[in-house]
Amino acid sequence: MNVFRKPQRTIWYNAHSACVEIIDQTKLPHSFETLALSSIDDFCVAIKKMQVRGAPLVGITAAYGLALGLRDNDSTEAEQHLYSLLMATRPTAVNLRWALDRVCFHISSGKRGKRAAKALKFCHLLADQDVDICESIGVNGLEVLQQLSAVRNASPLNILTHCNAGWLATVDWGTALAPIYKAHDSGISVHVWVDETRPRNQGNLTAWELSQQGVPHTLITDNTGGLLMQQGRVDCCIVGSDRTTAAGDVCNKVGTYLKALAAYEHNIPFYVALPSSTVDWTIVDSRAIPIEERSEGELRYVEGWSEERQNIETVRVGLDNGTAYNPAFDITPSKLVTGLITEYGCYNANAEALSELKKKLNH
Amino acid sequence: MNVFRKPQRTIWYNAHSACVEIIDQTKLPHSFETLALSSIDDFCVAIKKMQVRGAPLVGITAAYGLALGLRDNDSTEAEQHLYSLLMATRPTAVNLRWALDRVCFHISSGKRGKRAAKALKFCHLLADQDVDICESIGVNGLEVLQQLSAVRNASPLNILTHCNAGWLATVDWGTALAPIYKAHDSGISVHVWVDETRPRNQGNLTAWELSQQGVPHTLITDNTGGLLMQQGRVDCCIVGSDRTTAAGDVCNKVGTYLKALAAYEHNIPFYVALPSSTVDWTIVDSRAIPIEERSEGELRYVEGWSEERQNIETVRVGLDNGTAYNPAFDITPSKLVTGLITEYGCYNANAEALSELKKKLNH
Repeated sequence: MNVFRKPQRTIWYNAHSACVEIIDQTKLPHSFETLALSSIDDFCVAIKKMQVRGAPLVGITAAYGLALGLRDNDSTEAEQHLYSLLMATRPTAVNLRWALDRVCFHISSGKRGKRAAKALKFCHLLADQDVDICESIGVNGLEVLQQLSAVRNASPLNILTHCNAGWLATVDWGTALAPIYKAHDSGISVHVWVDETRPRNQGNLTAWELSQQGVPHTLITDNTGGLLMQQGRVDCCIVGSDRTTAAGDVCNKVGTYLKALAAYEHNIPFYVALPSSTVDWTIVDSRAIPIEERSEGELRYVEGWSEERQNIETVRVGLDNGTAYNPAFDITPSKLVTGLITEYGCYNANAEALSELKKKLNH
Repeated sequence: MNVFRKPQRTIWYNAHSACVEIIDQTKLPHSFETLALSSIDDFCVAIKKMQVRGAPLVGITAAYGLALGLRDNDSTEAEQHLYSLLMATRPTAVNLRWALDRVCFHISSGKRGKRAAKALKFCHLLADQDVDICESIGVNGLEVLQQLSAVRNASPLNILTHCNAGWLATVDWGTALAPIYKAHDSGISVHVWVDETRPRNQGNLTAWELSQQGVPHTLITDNTGGLLMQQGRVDCCIVGSDRTTAAGDVCNKVGTYLKALAAYEHNIPFYVALPSSTVDWTIVDSRAIPIEERSEGELRYVEGWSEERQNIETVRVGLDNGTAYNPAFDITPSKLVTGLITEYGCYNANAEALSELKKKLNH
């Protein structure tokens, strides 16, 4: 996608400095800054502090972290140590594990002294693959939106999204936003209702992305979607997924479930766009998914731009000594999901349909 | 209720200065400050800027504004002018109109030159009545909570509330929080999940209130309630109402509807606590209720306490030039409402039950 009209990825390898560079997403939408990551600490901090975020991008970043970490010592012990450090950064993220496992598998047969280079090369491949996967999600989602646009005869087609599952959450294109970019590019008139997504306000990342690509959109509070659906002003919802069970239940940013319930009540299609790597084939009962609990401070403090000081400042909105609870995800049961848009096509959200997807993956 | 362990109302007449005094709620929870209102401008600004807020308190404040405004000129023309200025401050508030109409009716037979004093005296009565009404809501709601506590065998009883319908929204006691205070006082173990309530974060007012009375509570984002219900961690919901139709549909702070849908899905009782004055007997179809649209800036800018500067500062969280949409209310259809807790008892949310309430009011 574009930033200031120039093509840009969220993560890339700088061969000159032998570092991985990322967009520091904690600075957006206020300023566009990049960061160089080199040590394993740099990578862990970047994931934990959400300088990179979004299931696919977190996976690729962790993979690069492992590869660069192996440069000092590429023994199996070192590899396991790096693996566990990276795994601990975001416990709910299933394709963090997926990406690390793929790197480990790839270098398992590598010779000592050459494993770091082999891992790094493989990371480049993973990053390119992520771009291809997301673009395929976009192409498959475009079909869904084309059909919907014809059926609902809506212009613009009003699409609600929660959190940021755009290109900032991946290497490029995004998941939930990829079909929207494809639709916009193909001349379908779209307008996106962007959930603010408290407490981290990732809706502002989505708004920034969409404005950079020229896609019409409107920021709303997380409370507003129900009213808009009541008023007939939402034609469909598309969200991403951090983890999807083999039965089609979707673990995604907290608040997704409330929107899915409302969409169901109003017969509004509710789509989830996801790379197949975020399907957790080992979990059938979604209650078994651990829900990451983040710091109370994310509710109590808000970062934003101070016009007066021309700087990013922190203010406290809540009580100094109050108690807050901040779980990051919830579960949208499969019955509320109209379809799962993957790089292999759009699947119904049930065990039978997903077993077809699994067969494709095993080929 | 108490502030720093001393009894306090949200609005009172200071006979010494001949002003009305209020708690400046835009400064809470950071600092407790009071404001003196004297001119009609003072009153209009206080309502518009939400230095006072909450349907009942807005009504009483407007009534006092009319009474003090009449001191300069108590002609019918002046009265009508004051009436229209006050009505324009919050166009959707049904009991702003109710309170003004009551004052106007009361002084309609008054003699020129004595109408201002008559109005002021009546405002004191309205304020005292509001306290009695809210305390009765508390007593009636306590019965509901006692039964629920017995049925659900939950200790503590976990109650979710949205926005602030506490004593800060009334003269004293509150509406949604009155039953909670009564339950707490009577020894029932309660714990309140407090929705942050974007964009104005009134949940922080609720948290402040509850902490001043020593009621256990936890602040959550507006996105979190669905997850908590999935996990069986909510025993009931109680919210307030800005306007309730004769058919039992509830217009309340935007986001209420999403919680009501989730509560319905999980068989969790969903109560609305309201003074009977907020029932709009003229509206049967809730789609006819105008939804107040507030400024985009409420989404884009956040006010909070700067630890560094020891002051309330404003930061911008969104894009400088982005588009946002900020409707303040939504409609919860009667089918999702378990009961309407009023000063006359708990009523089912339907036209038949409410016609019984209407009969009581007409006696």
